[in-house]
Amino acid sequence: MNPNKIPDIIVGRLPIYLRALQRMADRGLKTTSSQELGEHVGISAAQIRKDISQFGEFGKQGTGYSIQFLMDNLREILKIDQIWDVIVVGAGDMGSALVHYQGFQNRGFRVVMIFDSDKSKVGKKIGEFVVEDIVNMLEKIKSLNIKLAMLTVPAVAAQEVADKLVVAGIKAILNYAPVSLNVPMNVKVQYIDPSVHLQRMTYYL
Amino acid sequence: MNPNKIPDIIVGRLPIYLRALQRMADRGLKTTSSQELGEHVGISAAQIRKDISQFGEFGKQGTGYSIQFLMDNLREILKIDQIWDVIVVGAGDMGSALVHYQGFQNRGFRVVMIFDSDKSKVGKKIGEFVVEDIVNMLEKIKSLNIKLAMLTVPAVAAQEVADKLVVAGIKAILNYAPVSLNVPMNVKVQYIDPSVHLQRMTYYL
Repeated sequence: MNPNKIPDIIVGRLPIYLRALQRMADRGLKTTSSQELGEHVGISAAQIRKDISQFGEFGKQGTGYSIQFLMDNLREILKIDQIWDVIVVGAGDMGSALVHYQGFQNRGFRVVMIFDSDKSKVGKKIGEFVVEDIVNMLEKIKSLNIKLAMLTVPAVAAQEVADKLVVAGIKAILNYAPVSLNVPMNVKVQYIDPSVHLQRMTYYL
Repeated sequence: MNPNKIPDIIVGRLPIYLRALQRMADRGLKTTSSQELGEHVGISAAQIRKDISQFGEFGKQGTGYSIQFLMDNLREILKIDQIWDVIVVGAGDMGSALVHYQGFQNRGFRVVMIFDSDKSKVGKKIGEFVVEDIVNMLEKIKSLNIKLAMLTVPAVAAQEVADKLVVAGIKAILNYAPVSLNVPMNVKVQYIDPSVHLQRMTYYL
């Protein structure tokens, strides 16, 4: 299996499948079908079978998928059969919300540090963390070999901070700022964009 | 054009196309191709042509798409050729961040009120808003005929608040709480889930 051969759009659906499977497991279900999974995520059963079959044979004709087995395999494919350390840059409302967020548990991630450039925020406590000075960010990222960052700085500062993250060795940035980031090809960026989600719903109103 | 006939997965891609087109327009570009648009959003040119053609003929063979014309049409299809009022429920860090968020401008939305059940938060100012008591929420939503809500309450309270929103007439909920919501068929829910975005990137690490 060559990861470069799988289209990014398929990779992007795997976490959605995993989340739906987790919700089924939480409700006590043991097995599911591509049909049932499709109804939960709004994707056709045929598409789901095609997506999953890119990675191997995880279901049986007639009996469907073992939820736990499929979850274990998706976690391995997505490399979240380990816990990834993530830093937060920007100690405003959003950064603070991410430090307190309960939705990283059992999903493969933990916040390990939060940085800001504002001297009035540096040294203050947010949850169990003390806000660190952004001038020390490069050194800290390198020494802990951190690859993931969540960016919650103001829009005007986002590109400059992203450049620093790239220099420090960050390979994946989850960007909350409402701006497009320019990063090298080997660095991934995803955008948290509430407007996109709202627009998807107004279509139906 | 019957909106029920367009698969939800296609509808979900339109805001992504619109955002990419906006970024091109911001850079001064006037026209684009399905090929170029595809490179920006990580979706094949053929898929983009197929998606857009569901709604009409917006491009010309050989010359591609006028960015402004395609944006105008996508905005009309997504019903964001108007400004929608949105309420925020939950006046914690995330609610506060959404009140201050710059990314709703020119995207079809404006925050108009923020509610909380915590008496220590009610009456306090967040940005230009005074936090309103959740006991008045039903009446306020109805009197202003609001259809959209962003939910940033703790996970344990999310379903109860969602039920109240549905009774008040809300038809679309953007849920920041890391729990699945049960709502009637005629109410849409979208999830802001940073773990899903992070998982999509760890695949490549």
